[in-house]
Amino acid sequence: MLEIVISMLNFDIVKPTLIIDKAKALENIHRMQAKAARHGVVFRPHFKTHQSGLVGAWFRQAGVDKITVSSVSMAQYFADHGWDDILIAFPVNLLEIKQINRLASRINLQLLLEDLTVASQLNERLEHLVEIYIKIDVGAHRTGIPMENASQILGLAAEIGNLDKLKLKGLLAHAGQFYDNPGGIAAIQKEVSAINKQLVWLKQQIGDENLLLSWGDTPSCSMLETLPDFDEWRPGNFVYFDLMQYHIGACQLNDIAVAVACPVVAMHSERNEMTIYGGAVHFSKEFIAADQNFRLYGYLVTFTENGWSEPLSGAWLSGLSQEHGIVKIPSDLAQQFKPGDLVGILPIHSCLTVDAIGIQHTTVGELVPKMSFA
Amino acid sequence: MLEIVISMLNFDIVKPTLIIDKAKALENIHRMQAKAARHGVVFRPHFKTHQSGLVGAWFRQAGVDKITVSSVSMAQYFADHGWDDILIAFPVNLLEIKQINRLASRINLQLLLEDLTVASQLNERLEHLVEIYIKIDVGAHRTGIPMENASQILGLAAEIGNLDKLKLKGLLAHAGQFYDNPGGIAAIQKEVSAINKQLVWLKQQIGDENLLLSWGDTPSCSMLETLPDFDEWRPGNFVYFDLMQYHIGACQLNDIAVAVACPVVAMHSERNEMTIYGGAVHFSKEFIAADQNFRLYGYLVTFTENGWSEPLSGAWLSGLSQEHGIVKIPSDLAQQFKPGDLVGILPIHSCLTVDAIGIQHTTVGELVPKMSFA
Repeated sequence: MLEIVISMLNFDIVKPTLIIDKAKALENIHRMQAKAARHGVVFRPHFKTHQSGLVGAWFRQAGVDKITVSSVSMAQYFADHGWDDILIAFPVNLLEIKQINRLASRINLQLLLEDLTVASQLNERLEHLVEIYIKIDVGAHRTGIPMENASQILGLAAEIGNLDKLKLKGLLAHAGQFYDNPGGIAAIQKEVSAINKQLVWLKQQIGDENLLLSWGDTPSCSMLETLPDFDEWRPGNFVYFDLMQYHIGACQLNDIAVAVACPVVAMHSERNEMTIYGGAVHFSKEFIAADQNFRLYGYLVTFTENGWSEPLSGAWLSGLSQEHGIVKIPSDLAQQFKPGDLVGILPIHSCLTVDAIGIQHTTVGELVPKMSFA
Repeated sequence: MLEIVISMLNFDIVKPTLIIDKAKALENIHRMQAKAARHGVVFRPHFKTHQSGLVGAWFRQAGVDKITVSSVSMAQYFADHGWDDILIAFPVNLLEIKQINRLASRINLQLLLEDLTVASQLNERLEHLVEIYIKIDVGAHRTGIPMENASQILGLAAEIGNLDKLKLKGLLAHAGQFYDNPGGIAAIQKEVSAINKQLVWLKQQIGDENLLLSWGDTPSCSMLETLPDFDEWRPGNFVYFDLMQYHIGACQLNDIAVAVACPVVAMHSERNEMTIYGGAVHFSKEFIAADQNFRLYGYLVTFTENGWSEPLSGAWLSGLSQEHGIVKIPSDLAQQFKPGDLVGILPIHSCLTVDAIGIQHTTVGELVPKMSFA
């Protein structure tokens, strides 16, 4: 029954294809930009979600002129697309010093440090001044100096002050723990306040009133109406959102701006399953685990003239192998589909899905290639 | 302490880079090819693991002239690299009929069917004769007609016989259930024998003595010394192997021919962790779960003049975000590493890792690009 009917798409979709609802993405950008403006903070969105010069231009049109990326390669790509104020929010990789020096010669480059020895080695090898954020671990325990460890943070700040090629710009936090927070908004609000208090205190101890407190994760920036005393926000995923953000409570299903069009290739009514062309090489293998026996890899939608439907109740992507996806689907719903149809999947993690598929198509017919990794 | 010293690599590794141990890959190819020859079966290896024309040439030098792939795009790529006998081991995607017709005009193309309606629709739209395998579900419950459902299988075989553009070539099985088989070799041997018996019976019922029984999964083809009465083998992963195959018992650690070189970017001795540049966009998110609290994403190795070491005892890749990897590492071992070093990771699933990184480098200095997805 279902053929894709997004009216502006000017090509036949015959294999897994990533579709961006441009109107939703623009609205997501506008909403976050307006919120940051209301709070009077610097808005430095993370571009790792879309990895695309064209989507970057949508942000620029919304007034954004500073960005965050997650690799030196990504910084090079966006510098080539005219961005000249870029933070690489990933611990400095000393092996890429040549690439860092080339970047620092042409843009205002910010790097992330958490280690004294790396600071001095970086300083020795730099040919240009770069600005530095100290990465503070505020509870995610992935990278950074634990925020309670004031002496180590102050020691690194002092050392950076002694190094001629480094200029301390801020303290940077990413509360990744909010991706697994069963306590909801109230718990997040309380934790953010406690983190902020500690960061403000650290800033006072460092004694530099121009130091930025940089904050950024899509859940807290989306869910909280008030965020205390941070100077800069760096959320990224919000441009597209995804089912993980929906399950956290950071967006509505209707805010999700990305869906993957997948051909139906087999029906297995005997076990209430439909097989689609669309697998781990398209979605990565991110899932939401409700329990040991239930893994959610995506929701099923159908395409409409301008985009796609709400998720179809009772149907979900339940398994992925390299190219295959298994959709669980109740029998009455299954009767509406047959091999050769095209269905849509709302992904669990838009960043990884975009990275895996690589080429994005908007609902208004634009082709949006992501950066090449090589 | 550790710098990469693979002597033939003629470039600086500065970011996550996929290294193929060519000697091991050649030995893996030789071993499987020799085993297939001993058993007198057609060897039609799956190329979805490496997706590379250059690695394909290694197979060709070993005498291989028939291959299996998992998508129409992959068939196009290998047809462009001179392969003229290609099975697309994925249910026919009717939306790609134009691409299928173009392929069928220039190579000996085999397709996979499991559905009567798809068979007749395919036949209507084909411009050239193609050979057909019927996909039999022998227990993986991903795709195919359940092997117990003889009437459906025989009905499809008869219908294919009535269609002028389709020629029935074989019954195709993929025992994906062996990827999760705690019973080991004895249990697999027993199950393979039972499956074989049923397939032989189905072949007799169809009454075509030229019909091929096509078999193929790396675990059974690697682990079993005797495989009963199949006519064709299609394993793929064995060319590189990986930790999943090792944990199944299909290979030794020393057979694994792929490692990802990753820069160390931070040390966190307070929690016995090391942070590497190497994340979900490089490894996908495949893991081995020992229990709810333990996910294994890879083993840690160090590079040597000709390849890499055995895995370092007590160290493992325990978490992945987009670009970060977290390596659990005991304190005595951690003292040997610092930011700026390069370490190696043996991946869980080589197929997905190759697909994610895209460019492979051999230990003898060759550059091995995989096919482009677009």
